[in-house]
Amino acid sequence: MSGNKIGKMFNVTTFGSSHGTALGAVVDGCPAGLELSNTDIQSELDNRRPGTSQITSSRKEKDEVKILSGLFRGKTDGTPIAAVVFNREMDSSAYENLKNNPRPGHGDYTWQARYGNYDYRGGGRGSGRTTIGNVIGGAIAKKLLDTLDIKVISHVTQVGSVRANKMEPDEIETNIKLNSVKCADPEAAPRMEALILHVKEQGESVGGLVETIVLNAPAGLGEPVFEKLDADIARVLMGIGSVKGVEIGVGFKAAEIKGSQMNDEFYMDDQIIKTRTNHAGGILGGISTGMPIIARMVVKPTPSISKIQKTVDLESMEDAEIIISGRHDPCICPRITPVAEASVSIVIVDHLIRSGFINPVKL
Amino acid sequence: MSGNKIGKMFNVTTFGSSHGTALGAVVDGCPAGLELSNTDIQSELDNRRPGTSQITSSRKEKDEVKILSGLFRGKTDGTPIAAVVFNREMDSSAYENLKNNPRPGHGDYTWQARYGNYDYRGGGRGSGRTTIGNVIGGAIAKKLLDTLDIKVISHVTQVGSVRANKMEPDEIETNIKLNSVKCADPEAAPRMEALILHVKEQGESVGGLVETIVLNAPAGLGEPVFEKLDADIARVLMGIGSVKGVEIGVGFKAAEIKGSQMNDEFYMDDQIIKTRTNHAGGILGGISTGMPIIARMVVKPTPSISKIQKTVDLESMEDAEIIISGRHDPCICPRITPVAEASVSIVIVDHLIRSGFINPVKL
Amino acid sequence: MSGNKIGKMFNVTTFGSSHGTALGAVVDGCPAGLELSNTDIQSELDNRRPGTSQITSSRKEKDEVKILSGLFRGKTDGTPIAAVVFNREMDSSAYENLKNNPRPGHGDYTWQARYGNYDYRGGGRGSGRTTIGNVIGGAIAKKLLDTLDIKVISHVTQVGSVRANKMEPDEIETNIKLNSVKCADPEAAPRMEALILHVKEQGESVGGLVETIVLNAPAGLGEPVFEKLDADIARVLMGIGSVKGVEIGVGFKAAEIKGSQMNDEFYMDDQIIKTRTNHAGGILGGISTGMPIIARMVVKPTPSISKIQKTVDLESMEDAEIIISGRHDPCICPRITPVAEASVSIVIVDHLIRSGFINPVKL
Amino acid sequence: MSGNKIGKMFNVTTFGSSHGTALGAVVDGCPAGLELSNTDIQSELDNRRPGTSQITSSRKEKDEVKILSGLFRGKTDGTPIAAVVFNREMDSSAYENLKNNPRPGHGDYTWQARYGNYDYRGGGRGSGRTTIGNVIGGAIAKKLLDTLDIKVISHVTQVGSVRANKMEPDEIETNIKLNSVKCADPEAAPRMEALILHVKEQGESVGGLVETIVLNAPAGLGEPVFEKLDADIARVLMGIGSVKGVEIGVGFKAAEIKGSQMNDEFYMDDQIIKTRTNHAGGILGGISTGMPIIARMVVKPTPSISKIQKTVDLESMEDAEIIISGRHDPCICPRITPVAEASVSIVIVDHLIRSGFINPVKL
Repeated sequence: MSGNKIGKMFNVTTFGSSHGTALGAVVDGCPAGLELSNTDIQSELDNRRPGTSQITSSRKEKDEVKILSGLFRGKTDGTPIAAVVFNREMDSSAYENLKNNPRPGHGDYTWQARYGNYDYRGGGRGSGRTTIGNVIGGAIAKKLLDTLDIKVISHVTQVGSVRANKMEPDEIETNIKLNSVKCADPEAAPRMEALILHVKEQGESVGGLVETIVLNAPAGLGEPVFEKLDADIARVLMGIGSVKGVEIGVGFKAAEIKGSQMNDEFYMDDQIIKTRTNHAGGILGGISTGMPIIARMVVKPTPSISKIQKTVDLESMEDAEIIISGRHDPCICPRITPVAEASVSIVIVDHLIRSGFINPVKL
Repeated sequence: MSGNKIGKMFNVTTFGSSHGTALGAVVDGCPAGLELSNTDIQSELDNRRPGTSQITSSRKEKDEVKILSGLFRGKTDGTPIAAVVFNREMDSSAYENLKNNPRPGHGDYTWQARYGNYDYRGGGRGSGRTTIGNVIGGAIAKKLLDTLDIKVISHVTQVGSVRANKMEPDEIETNIKLNSVKCADPEAAPRMEALILHVKEQGESVGGLVETIVLNAPAGLGEPVFEKLDADIARVLMGIGSVKGVEIGVGFKAAEIKGSQMNDEFYMDDQIIKTRTNHAGGILGGISTGMPIIARMVVKPTPSISKIQKTVDLESMEDAEIIISGRHDPCICPRITPVAEASVSIVIVDHLIRSGFINPVKL
Repeated sequence: MSGNKIGKMFNVTTFGSSHGTALGAVVDGCPAGLELSNTDIQSELDNRRPGTSQITSSRKEKDEVKILSGLFRGKTDGTPIAAVVFNREMDSSAYENLKNNPRPGHGDYTWQARYGNYDYRGGGRGSGRTTIGNVIGGAIAKKLLDTLDIKVISHVTQVGSVRANKMEPDEIETNIKLNSVKCADPEAAPRMEALILHVKEQGESVGGLVETIVLNAPAGLGEPVFEKLDADIARVLMGIGSVKGVEIGVGFKAAEIKGSQMNDEFYMDDQIIKTRTNHAGGILGGISTGMPIIARMVVKPTPSISKIQKTVDLESMEDAEIIISGRHDPCICPRITPVAEASVSIVIVDHLIRSGFINPVKL
Repeated sequence: MSGNKIGKMFNVTTFGSSHGTALGAVVDGCPAGLELSNTDIQSELDNRRPGTSQITSSRKEKDEVKILSGLFRGKTDGTPIAAVVFNREMDSSAYENLKNNPRPGHGDYTWQARYGNYDYRGGGRGSGRTTIGNVIGGAIAKKLLDTLDIKVISHVTQVGSVRANKMEPDEIETNIKLNSVKCADPEAAPRMEALILHVKEQGESVGGLVETIVLNAPAGLGEPVFEKLDADIARVLMGIGSVKGVEIGVGFKAAEIKGSQMNDEFYMDDQIIKTRTNHAGGILGGISTGMPIIARMVVKPTPSISKIQKTVDLESMEDAEIIISGRHDPCICPRITPVAEASVSIVIVDHLIRSGFINPVKL
């Protein structure tokens, strides 16, 4: 496996697994001169921590991050920034029964097919915990975005059949802190929470939608024809575990509308070129338009459910059954929002540097 | 711009624009020993040629490909394969009125914002013609896939509100040759054609869905955590002009279903591990399962429509109007299918080499 | 083989072989807005053309370059620039006797070992003609360097045991045009020419040294710890056929001197930090100092000599003998100077962009 | 800075500086199934440790490595392997006087020019300590090389004017363990040691040559035309601090000899194609021949000397003087040998995977 790096000029290499010694990331290509401390990363990591409400798993993951390199007198010095989180809780016994029985919907079997082994303890490298690396990289990216007043916000717009109403960016930013489901619509949020609790009681899980908005990104980001901004966003979001689809702007609705309904007409707004509508989601021809960038991803229902499931036994090579115990989020959407934010932030910063908006070497 | 290369071990660098001298690609990393001729690429290029039916644009693009390098005695010799298509028809006068007025829904404005210029003649590098490069790379990739009996098939599953019924792979392969809309459902196809003709008469355009299926790919393809197979497929499909979303397996439907409905249970089928359902679309944990890989993309309605549209004038920096003349496909879906096939083929071959299924140096 | 690309932001992918249809390059990452024409590249290519004097091979290679893409109204438009040279003279019969008998000192055998074939016609991709790709990329790089008044000059400092005296940069630039051996020392040049003619008469060949100087490069180029400027220069020079060594500044002399003799002391020169000596060759810690960058490479004697040589027969797998006919340069040094210039120019431009000295997108 | 990764399929990202919290590396692309423990890496690290003899600096660096990820049941599991060494001794006061006065021969000034800062404490990221990352990567690479019986050995062949006689590979392997100067010639070794002690007493330093030999590498490694094996070796060796030149085989001697003296004639040796001589140093056309690969690098005299040196003051921008105190190796050659070994091992493994000799995913 050699695919653990994302980004070209600003790049993030992640490592670590659920029950190994530590997880972390090396961020290379961050310009010198950025103020950075453990706290900056810690606060982002805390956002993805479970155990903060009833609707997430009750595990206590106290993830303390430590920056190992790349700082000089409180600022980045242009050298690679390594940061780690040591795994604390290491009881793997709950996973022993998964040893030869790959869990449906998880990567156990494909990992085994590829590598000849799979780390069945907590999902190994396939665990959601590996996104700690994304969040580390994203926390640094966000600090760079701050210098240009660019914001990246992810929020939950749908859980099961409960959909949030469309909200304005500033409402989204405010409201997602008010509920445990990271939903900006104050009416939909409690219904989402209720649905999640309901499926949890059933031993089930449920999927949903997470939207990521980028505000204040300049026009001109993206490198056609293969490293377009939408292509790179799609890649990083689809690469997050449990994501089965990504769309930009109106997305899949584009199949059913006509050209005149799809096209965003241009107009002059105080010497700035804008579009009145934003069906394109802020990207045309693979390059940002200057309007908000809008990407949505679908998150499948957590594959770990309490019901008996059919699987195979890799040792006897016969059919088998499996019951997954342990604690699991019945809906991953809320906890995946900081991961989406982090991942998109990395892409945006990388393209800002590649496009000359941020100096590649020093601020 | 430095994003014109796709693939890591098997990689394709494309070049050229709609009204420049030539378009083409350099394919690097193709193992030595593969029989290859101009004809192999020409037949794939002919698939994307317009002017073959009423529903596509009436332009006559006679695209003749010529391989410039990489062959020795009729076989690839391990050196880079360059292939070009010279542009013939070069009348750019029809585009003169677009000079300062970016077309809504096109990349004209974003190109201008990024590069300080845009080649308004036929869309420049943003034109669909640049996918000739993808198709060249894909044609070579397909020859490699043939050696492993792996097939990649793209077909149109929806145009506007007309949806095709689900068909079996062998039906798809056969039926898409029977109609001009590349739809496998013989009942839906004529309705799609009628709809396209209808919107054409209205001076309008319409979007749709294109599905790509990969058959016989082995389990084990994909490099977590950032170069997962689904992430790489999402990137290459989202990077095709006019695509606004990509989904794998059940895709966006995953938002509304429960874990027990999503998970594909494993079973033994004559010593081979399979899943009875394939909601995952052949990919779990970012790695192929051995089941068919299924990716769907949404294609927006062609932005070039005959109606008057509002835009701006880049010279006067004032509001303006634009009428786009010229010949345009009212629905891009049929012509984009070979591009999707080619693009996914490139990704699959790259991962086959990166995973040890194809020798990187010689067959 | 997938190693035909050099450069990260400004990158050059080359293709083609000695007796194939064409050779060329795709240059990606050149900013928009650079004036460029066929002539700019042609004049650089003409520098590497043989047949212009007695001391080079008498082949008539009329290499006409044609730019296929990347230009709009006489300027680069930010899209990839493809350029090709079609091979004219195609008589491969002179090489038929090499079919199964790899030439000593050439890549025939290693190519066979790697790819299962070797294109014995004129050296195939291993031919010096493939450096046409480097020169194409270098010609464009040089145009960019011009905008910053940076010069890259290569000259021959030694042929066999004939050494040139040290000359000043402006003398070098002037003098190398005055003789066929590209030597800046007017006293050594005729002795080099005489030596080359002498070994030619003997059916022999001779090696030499080529020095490349970069003037006016700013301090700050190079990305420690693996993409240092000297490391990248070493790579690109060592990658040129026949080069067996690369040194920077005093180079191998450093083995025998003491620290106080090696170190270049700093001083202030009108508010600019300089060093009085330049033993470091303009690079410290892998980053340019602002002083002239000086790299030297050793070029081995042309492996194609007229004498009978021992080899093996790949078909019978027995010992064999070989006589190489055809026309060959008895000393490659003069013709390799434009290749060194081009290759180093590509590296410098790439690092200028990566370091923020040239905007990556537009001038 | 984004150049902290080396290798394409087997790649190593390093981080950390002399006086930061920790140094380390992330190794990505190591196939699953390789037995690996802290001890494997520790023993290689111990080779580069100073303080083991009179001729190296008297610092006590107890570098304890800890693997953080990538192992499952004592074997690599295909996921990235992170390993760190925490810095213990942290007294930076000895460096305070260097704060504004860049040391001649060091990267202080160029670092400042590039990043706007330089970590003057122990050389920061420019310190030799950063090669701990190389050694970590190399230790894992060597374990992979063991599976193919490939050996990489570095030894000192010259210090100042003291040259070692040519020795056979097995003598080299044995003898370098017998003296502190890592020289295989038992007669030259004590003279080298005496010379080093002598220059130390003078407050001086001295340079030398280090040769790296790769035994049993198969024919066929290297990717022309830009990622040739010799080019990649040159890059990684030139990238090591203090190295000013790299040569392959006869190297710079090639300038003065004739073609018939340079060429290695082929012969059949029990159905294996070999060359009687090995002037090429095991690489022809950028691809390995199957003969021993021989690379030599020149190491400049340690720039840290005890004498008063002229420099500038970056604050006052005036001329200044500097005295470097602290403990420094008067000759870096012995301690750099494990770094050369490690670095070349990484390149060889990367090419073995890229060429199909090692499965990229699992052993």
